Amino acid sequence: MTVEPASLDRLLAPRAIAVVGASPDAGKLAGRPLGYLRRYGFAGAVYAVNPKYGEIGGVLCVPTVDDLPDGIDLALLLVPAGGVAPALEACGRRGIPFAISIASGFTEAGAPELQEELVRICRRHGVRLVGPNCVGLLNPRQGVTATFSTELRRRMPRPGPLALVTQSGALGNSLLQSFNDLDIGLTSWISTGNEADLGVLDFVEHFIDDPDCRTIALFVEGLKDGHRLLPLARRARAEGKALVVLRAGRSDLGRAASASHTGKLAGSARVWRDVARQAGLVEIGTLDELLDLVLALDVLGPASGDAADGLGVLTISGGLGVLISDAAADHGLAIPGFDAGTRDGLRALLPPQMTVANPVDTALFTDERGYARCAELVLADPAVGTLLLVLTSLAHDYRALVPWLAELADGARARGKHVAVTFLSSSDLLERDDRRTLLEAGLLVLPSAERVVAALARRRRAAAAAAPPVEAAAPAHAAERTAAGFLARAGVPMVPEALCRTPEEALRFAGEVGFPVVLKVASPDIAHKTEVGGVAVGLADSAALEQAWRTIARSVAEKAPHARIDGMQVQAMVRDGVELIVGGSVDPELGRVLMLGAGGIWAEVLEDVAFLALPAGPQEIAEALRRLRIHPLLTGARGRARLDVDAAVAVMHRLADAFQVETWVDELDINPLIVRPEGLGAVAVDALVVTRSADNR
Amino acid sequence: MTVEPASLDRLLAPRAIAVVGASPDAGKLAGRPLGYLRRYGFAGAVYAVNPKYGEIGGVLCVPTVDDLPDGIDLALLLVPAGGVAPALEACGRRGIPFAISIASGFTEAGAPELQEELVRICRRHGVRLVGPNCVGLLNPRQGVTATFSTELRRRMPRPGPLALVTQSGALGNSLLQSFNDLDIGLTSWISTGNEADLGVLDFVEHFIDDPDCRTIALFVEGLKDGHRLLPLARRARAEGKALVVLRAGRSDLGRAASASHTGKLAGSARVWRDVARQAGLVEIGTLDELLDLVLALDVLGPASGDAADGLGVLTISGGLGVLISDAAADHGLAIPGFDAGTRDGLRALLPPQMTVANPVDTALFTDERGYARCAELVLADPAVGTLLLVLTSLAHDYRALVPWLAELADGARARGKHVAVTFLSSSDLLERDDRRTLLEAGLLVLPSAERVVAALARRRRAAAAAAPPVEAAAPAHAAERTAAGFLARAGVPMVPEALCRTPEEALRFAGEVGFPVVLKVASPDIAHKTEVGGVAVGLADSAALEQAWRTIARSVAEKAPHARIDGMQVQAMVRDGVELIVGGSVDPELGRVLMLGAGGIWAEVLEDVAFLALPAGPQEIAEALRRLRIHPLLTGARGRARLDVDAAVAVMHRLADAFQVETWVDELDINPLIVRPEGLGAVAVDALVVTRSADNR
Repeated sequence: MTVEPASLDRLLAPRAIAVVGASPDAGKLAGRPLGYLRRYGFAGAVYAVNPKYGEIGGVLCVPTVDDLPDGIDLALLLVPAGGVAPALEACGRRGIPFAISIASGFTEAGAPELQEELVRICRRHGVRLVGPNCVGLLNPRQGVTATFSTELRRRMPRPGPLALVTQSGALGNSLLQSFNDLDIGLTSWISTGNEADLGVLDFVEHFIDDPDCRTIALFVEGLKDGHRLLPLARRARAEGKALVVLRAGRSDLGRAASASHTGKLAGSARVWRDVARQAGLVEIGTLDELLDLVLALDVLGPASGDAADGLGVLTISGGLGVLISDAAADHGLAIPGFDAGTRDGLRALLPPQMTVANPVDTALFTDERGYARCAELVLADPAVGTLLLVLTSLAHDYRALVPWLAELADGARARGKHVAVTFLSSSDLLERDDRRTLLEAGLLVLPSAERVVAALARRRRAAAAAAPPVEAAAPAHAAERTAAGFLARAGVPMVPEALCRTPEEALRFAGEVGFPVVLKVASPDIAHKTEVGGVAVGLADSAALEQAWRTIARSVAEKAPHARIDGMQVQAMVRDGVELIVGGSVDPELGRVLMLGAGGIWAEVLEDVAFLALPAGPQEIAEALRRLRIHPLLTGARGRARLDVDAAVAVMHRLADAFQVETWVDELDINPLIVRPEGLGAVAVDALVVTRSADNR
Repeated sequence: MTVEPASLDRLLAPRAIAVVGASPDAGKLAGRPLGYLRRYGFAGAVYAVNPKYGEIGGVLCVPTVDDLPDGIDLALLLVPAGGVAPALEACGRRGIPFAISIASGFTEAGAPELQEELVRICRRHGVRLVGPNCVGLLNPRQGVTATFSTELRRRMPRPGPLALVTQSGALGNSLLQSFNDLDIGLTSWISTGNEADLGVLDFVEHFIDDPDCRTIALFVEGLKDGHRLLPLARRARAEGKALVVLRAGRSDLGRAASASHTGKLAGSARVWRDVARQAGLVEIGTLDELLDLVLALDVLGPASGDAADGLGVLTISGGLGVLISDAAADHGLAIPGFDAGTRDGLRALLPPQMTVANPVDTALFTDERGYARCAELVLADPAVGTLLLVLTSLAHDYRALVPWLAELADGARARGKHVAVTFLSSSDLLERDDRRTLLEAGLLVLPSAERVVAALARRRRAAAAAAPPVEAAAPAHAAERTAAGFLARAGVPMVPEALCRTPEEALRFAGEVGFPVVLKVASPDIAHKTEVGGVAVGLADSAALEQAWRTIARSVAEKAPHARIDGMQVQAMVRDGVELIVGGSVDPELGRVLMLGAGGIWAEVLEDVAFLALPAGPQEIAEALRRLRIHPLLTGARGRARLDVDAAVAVMHRLADAFQVETWVDELDINPLIVRPEGLGAVAVDALVVTRSADNR
């Protein structure tokens, strides 16, 4: 299903478009696209298809798709659900490579069979389809308006470096409105609807190689082929492109039904959050946050990634300064101290009782001129990359400041710096024209200081260094599909253990590996042995072992009376080290993920875990380990021994590769994996391997 | 310093006001208050004090404070810093009970001695002072305008149930602007400035008993006498009043310098968050959040606290519906399912392919009439307390909907329900007049759905049930100021242990209490023994004990060569149970707090702790324990024994009371406190008691 990236060029920049089902009535939905193409100067050829007309508004109209001339790149199908399949079939016959269907009445309306028919036609003819149930697409640079969006009645967005791809048509349309209000430039706008064929990630793949695109913003409710997200995001980051995702549906579904700890902990929100971090994409929670960030990227361009790019703040309220510092701390944005030159300059401008520090509080002690001088000083400070001004009519006639602000931003840009403007209260709002002037002059204008701080912080994250590329694991060869086989192939070192059928066998094995030992009930029907009293640890001698055998047998008989009991496992006891859990599960959206975290009894109690999409390299695994709260226990904190973290990472990496390729395994728990003191490696005590059909211990 | 609540009545509703330093020039700051008092109809007597004038704008002007007639309740001092002390002194002489000083140039400007002089005058004469360095106060119901706020040039806020108290004058002023923009009613507005005498909490105490006040909102940068917050908040909650706090300065200062775990973990943000929850106050992070919440409280009134008060949502976008559900889940607001009647009604109004569920997605399938019918159905659903409508010009002429919306809200209110309105995009904004119409009709209007959800969720929290009152601990009697004395008085059960000077003494004691034992170095100079290799656990017999003695002695000699060694502690080893930490520390703002959390080596690694301000009752302590991530380990999760949580709570409660009254103790760690199986109690293994001058183990 993966397409060559270049292959969507003719969809987004078609040389000729056919509008199938076009209407001459501009008031009707089916009348709009032709009008838009004319109004916004599409330079290619346009044809209409409708048996009722010979021409529509000067455009040649043919009765059927079969009557179209050669060379059509894109067919926009405005026909209702029942007519889509025949029209698409006709496109295929005519060799038209791309089609868009806006009709509703498919999977979203409980008619998946109609949608599957479209997929079959696409496969048969090699036609690529956008939709159905979508609003179409837009390419302002080329005047391509393959959409019925009402917003085009108002205006066409200006060309710019942002590609927006949304599954929801209504939200796509509303974002288009907001983009026009804020004058945010667009390279393309696409509503993917039901994604019968082309999905959001196909467009991501395209825009990675589109030189006009610098930022890719997505609104998704559920990714199709989500396992492609990580490699695509890695490529986007390597190309220096920001990938921004607003995701709906963060609630944690389907956790409880899982047999493994890993499955239970793998809530969709948590996995997404971790994979977003791994992939270097910026996950966004609300429409406002998305708009603020794309506005910041549009107006300021991408962040330099320069560590010295700090925020300088000028307010008339010390209290607000502290609130802004709080917001900056929350969002991880630096508010640096000033150098001596800046401090001296400010001191000369402010009364002696005012403290001179970042954020600067001028109170009501400056007129417009003095305020401007303060701003220029802060902007010139070597540690300041962006200056934030909080304007208020309490202090200044800030409308009179607008021309100066535009100049200030101009000068700033020449030095690779920026200016952001916001307002103290809801009374302090700019007229629309003034705001546009400032935006056009390259100032970021947002309604509150907290939103400026959040947008700047996300802009920095969008420019964070790309993760190193990771080789995908080699496909698995035909192999024995047992838990033991899987663990052996993954090279997971297990503690010595033996299945014993009698206390005598247990005593013999314990004598061989040495006391103390652990005794555990062996049953295919008991996933969590502790819960049925099926485990005894620290058995120091023969007497303790015999006693424990009896106790476990009694407890299991009572608490799991119907379980098949195969005997008991006797295991050498590893007492030095820290217990981790390593697991694998299949996220319904993102595919196979590795989980690592605090293990043993702590696994589900602490929920101190991190997820990685696959493939994941050793560097990413080590980084995920460092994010765990229990990480200090691995590195010799509080007088403890330093542990063999390298060995643990190596085991996790082998498990990650094995879990990626051995797709017959659906869930996996290694719990605990004991990380032993440096030089002694890491060893697994228990493992659970779950397949869709059965549990294999 | 505590004042009788009733004693601020004459400050906020004075019968006569003197404006000291008044100017006839209305353009000057000192000219404004007299003008405002006239303009807004203050009914009491007004006098001016200024040697230059005989009258100002018809108001009698006397040369000095001494010349004022009797019966003045409030003197508004408009004189600069140097003139405040003499003026205040004169007020005291004349028996004027209240004064406000707006002058800057005191502690905030590095001149604390000037401010201390004011405090001395207040104490001497019993005058109560607001400020200095403040903007004054406002009481719209009485026309009291003891302020120079520029916002009064525009308008006086309407009387309402909200009291706003801010330390920052500029933010107070900007909030006043915003309140007027949103037409939020105010009972009082006070800027407390430097709080030389009266502080924010004095006003909280007043408003608890003010029948005109329903919501108390604070902006604070640092509480004075913060230990009063908890008892005052408890009283406010008991009176059914909402207490809302926007706090600046959430960064964690002064953690590293602490000797105890508790001190290190007691970051200001964390303590505040926990105490806010304990006190039942709503902590707010940004100005927008504060405005949204007070608007919701103003327009909708307090939340009913009724569990069935769910949110019904109507949008034209399924994707937006999912985003709103996500926001509701994040904020803990219920989006209930509809009953059959609602579902049937909606099904009749929407095309068959649309799913009928909350949030409702009408897509573009309803005209204004159909949309209104859908809204009425959702609002009538028994599980829905508030209906959220997301309006957009994509679907409807929503300006035409305004009169219907006002009616809808009217009908809703009659049934104890509410309507909130927001917009899909930035293009979809109401004209100011329409917005005012809707606000006046009792609809909540906010710029985004996420903000509606957040405000409604906080409104519910503001109405949460009050915590039960807690008796303060009895003051301590003169007592032996040693760690052992403190622990004995607090009734903390300790495991049997003995200080042994030789291995032979250790062997003898171990023989008495039974093996295994724990061996720990005893030194007044070593706070954290594990870090110097000073602890050995699980010593099973005499040989192990002797070996451990040698190992510890060697390690300590190497890692803490200058420590005084008193010998070694031999301790019976408790092996059954879960380790907690219980501590005490003094928060610089909120005073004495109890900390409880995961103990042993986990204390600082997991930071799984909760704080409580004192006094804290057993119910609050048990509730804080339930918030710990490790809580399941106490209640018999995963097949473990149920532990003696009641005993642990009892120990913590006694410790809380002892720590509250024995103020010579500055920091306290009981770590670990082992909670043993049910019936066996809880026992402390180690304790650290820190006083300002010395450590006492």
